[in-house]
Amino acid sequence: MDLHESYMRKALEEAAQAAAEGEIPVGAVVVCRGKIIARAHNQTERLHDVTAHAEMLAVTMAADYLGGKYLNECTLYVTLEPCPMCAGALAWAQLGALVIGAPDPLRGYSRLVPPVLHPRTQVLTGILADPCLRLLKDFFTRKR
Amino acid sequence: MDLHESYMRKALEEAAQAAAEGEIPVGAVVVCRGKIIARAHNQTERLHDVTAHAEMLAVTMAADYLGGKYLNECTLYVTLEPCPMCAGALAWAQLGALVIGAPDPLRGYSRLVPPVLHPRTQVLTGILADPCLRLLKDFFTRKR
Repeated sequence: MDLHESYMRKALEEAAQAAAEGEIPVGAVVVCRGKIIARAHNQTERLHDVTAHAEMLAVTMAADYLGGKYLNECTLYVTLEPCPMCAGALAWAQLGALVIGAPDPLRGYSRLVPPVLHPRTQVLTGILADPCLRLLKDFFTRKR
Repeated sequence: MDLHESYMRKALEEAAQAAAEGEIPVGAVVVCRGKIIARAHNQTERLHDVTAHAEMLAVTMAADYLGGKYLNECTLYVTLEPCPMCAGALAWAQLGALVIGAPDPLRGYSRLVPPVLHPRTQVLTGILADPCLRLLKDFFTRKR
């Protein structure tokens, strides 16, 4: 199986866990030199904290694991295009690469000008976009 | 003394504390119904965590105090114009009002189009801008 898809499936597992906890299902993993060093899912409801997005938690965990705040040798896999808050965090971390599942035309960072991400961050979008989006759609359908 | 200046001085105290700890001196306080419910300063170096900006920590603390994630009845005072990450967090929190000390033309959120803040967040800039900026300039002069 494609390596990007393999890691995105791990992010999807995190997103499914979020859904099971009543959280908007977004999941993320951080990979460094072939190893998953952080995995997280959205916890904004449980923690009553808007900053507890999957990416934010994953960035904090990865930096904690590495003992330094820069993630320039890391790839973050996330099931939904990051919002401006999360993209801003990824910029400060000088993230090496960002792999996105589903795009988020309404709230995603890529609408913003000038670009928010660090100029050296490589971006790949659309990895397992369908299952990533389906999880979100199913969640909101059940909510209604 | 002007109320905005009074609260900004509390944010400046936090920023000075950051400087004393070797952190880029930015401080923030959150005021809700005339009471300071959160105060924080930048801790990115100490925590090895790019997400540990003063505003982010203050948002988490304020939400924890209130027991809910929305800060629509709160005013956040911060000594430097927030970056995109922090502005994104303030948007998710539906912050009532944002009072800024010094503008940040290079890294501030206000450069971004479309606007990142929540449309109902009121913004006031330039409160004690000179001492807020001086603290930053002195810090970087000492660093060199």
